[in-house]
Amino acid sequence: MSFATVEGYEKRVHESFAKQGVMQTFGAQITTVEPGEVNIEMPFDRRFTQQHGFLHAGVVTTVLDSAAGYAAYSLMPAGTGVLTIELKTSLMRVAEGALFRFEGRVLKAGRNVMFAEAKAYASNKEIAHLTASMMVVEGREGIEG
Amino acid sequence: MSFATVEGYEKRVHESFAKQGVMQTFGAQITTVEPGEVNIEMPFDRRFTQQHGFLHAGVVTTVLDSAAGYAAYSLMPAGTGVLTIELKTSLMRVAEGALFRFEGRVLKAGRNVMFAEAKAYASNKEIAHLTASMMVVEGREGIEG
Amino acid sequence: MSFATVEGYEKRVHESFAKQGVMQTFGAQITTVEPGEVNIEMPFDRRFTQQHGFLHAGVVTTVLDSAAGYAAYSLMPAGTGVLTIELKTSLMRVAEGALFRFEGRVLKAGRNVMFAEAKAYASNKEIAHLTASMMVVEGREGIEG
Amino acid sequence: MSFATVEGYEKRVHESFAKQGVMQTFGAQITTVEPGEVNIEMPFDRRFTQQHGFLHAGVVTTVLDSAAGYAAYSLMPAGTGVLTIELKTSLMRVAEGALFRFEGRVLKAGRNVMFAEAKAYASNKEIAHLTASMMVVEGREGIEG
Repeated sequence: MSFATVEGYEKRVHESFAKQGVMQTFGAQITTVEPGEVNIEMPFDRRFTQQHGFLHAGVVTTVLDSAAGYAAYSLMPAGTGVLTIELKTSLMRVAEGALFRFEGRVLKAGRNVMFAEAKAYASNKEIAHLTASMMVVEGREGIEG
Repeated sequence: MSFATVEGYEKRVHESFAKQGVMQTFGAQITTVEPGEVNIEMPFDRRFTQQHGFLHAGVVTTVLDSAAGYAAYSLMPAGTGVLTIELKTSLMRVAEGALFRFEGRVLKAGRNVMFAEAKAYASNKEIAHLTASMMVVEGREGIEG
Repeated sequence: MSFATVEGYEKRVHESFAKQGVMQTFGAQITTVEPGEVNIEMPFDRRFTQQHGFLHAGVVTTVLDSAAGYAAYSLMPAGTGVLTIELKTSLMRVAEGALFRFEGRVLKAGRNVMFAEAKAYASNKEIAHLTASMMVVEGREGIEG
Repeated sequence: MSFATVEGYEKRVHESFAKQGVMQTFGAQITTVEPGEVNIEMPFDRRFTQQHGFLHAGVVTTVLDSAAGYAAYSLMPAGTGVLTIELKTSLMRVAEGALFRFEGRVLKAGRNVMFAEAKAYASNKEIAHLTASMMVVEGREGIEG
């Protein structure tokens, strides 16, 4: 699938991502941004584990949601904001490994709602799969980016 | 709904929860444990926000998942472990507030799979709702608790 | 939860429901309509089963979706239409029984998106639980009701 | 992804599918079966519509669930049965068209739980996407196939 390029999308994605306190705290970084696709990497960190020592399913979901959300945001016009309506994560394997990759992409770009998915990988195995609906927010105070 | 009490459930829930690095990092604490029900509280913290300054949807999901997961684990026999198969979160309102409450409870306790839900509240408003399927894991190395 | 009453909501829900070919084919009928709540009943029918002779999970989901969707629609202003953005069903028990009841209700009524849930019962046991996001559609040709 | 072939998988998938009353009622037919992949077709039928004249989201979900479920079942050993634990459908476009295609495939084949997805197409556009968890059922009376 290929999407029309929105002017300034790359800069806006990076600027908004930089404001996500949780991505900084997780040590997560954007590796690539294309129209409708955003990839992120995050190292393993003991501070974000569940009880067996794996990355917590919710932490995996957090980065999946950011990857999917910024994939969606990359297609939105300037002056809008993105909010997740809902997300679902299928946890196929435990999140074990030194480095985690997350690939977000848009499945359908609507004017008001965007459908996106994201996949998480560890040691080249798919460990989790998210699908989400993202709202394109316009003219709501405090919701830009 | 009321469930049969499994001996030692409260101690096992607290011990397993204490091993979740991410709950300590988030400053999240269990407030009550009953058979099939676990409540958690977490204060707002700038380190875990999204781009508009609210708690990140994935962070909310993380604590919802722990609340639902430990509600399920409270009904599991000693020697087993709990893993989330999948989770879905509906994000009804932005996660704005000083303190967040999370209420997890089991909807159906099966022998192999448990269905649970959890609700998140801020300022007495429901902000998010999770449903999840939890696997009862037996005899798998490293998966106890 | 209680919602403000939208004038003519009951008539509009019944009229739109009557247009759903699949509800007629399933023999499903609305039993009650309140603002934000719609209940439906459907008898067991061999024509809609899965391979073990139970009602198919997707058939249960279909009626759950109509219950949740009309609960949402009951709160929408005249001239709008309702479309499901996404739905998730947790299938807690097999759909076995002579009569099935479905209870849909709105969890959060937004201007553009409504969050709803619905529960399915057979022999007074909860067999399935749906959560869904519903879009409030305005000014789109062919999408009214 | 490629999966090991289970002896007699094709015959067992077709035999079980033939027992799904709802697939016959919908006029849905399997077009191809491979290990971990099942495709189905279904013609448009006014008897299964929602209020605007499109195929009902739940009907689309029903066939998606059968496609995903039989993709999973194609990898299960003889003597087992398949039950859907939960499913989620993202409804990207309205279900408009004369013929609908459904492609189900397994994402991860576990011993107890299988993760699958399915996509629905109309006029070569993707209209809906399902993810589901499927239980491998053994030794439960009445649950074979």
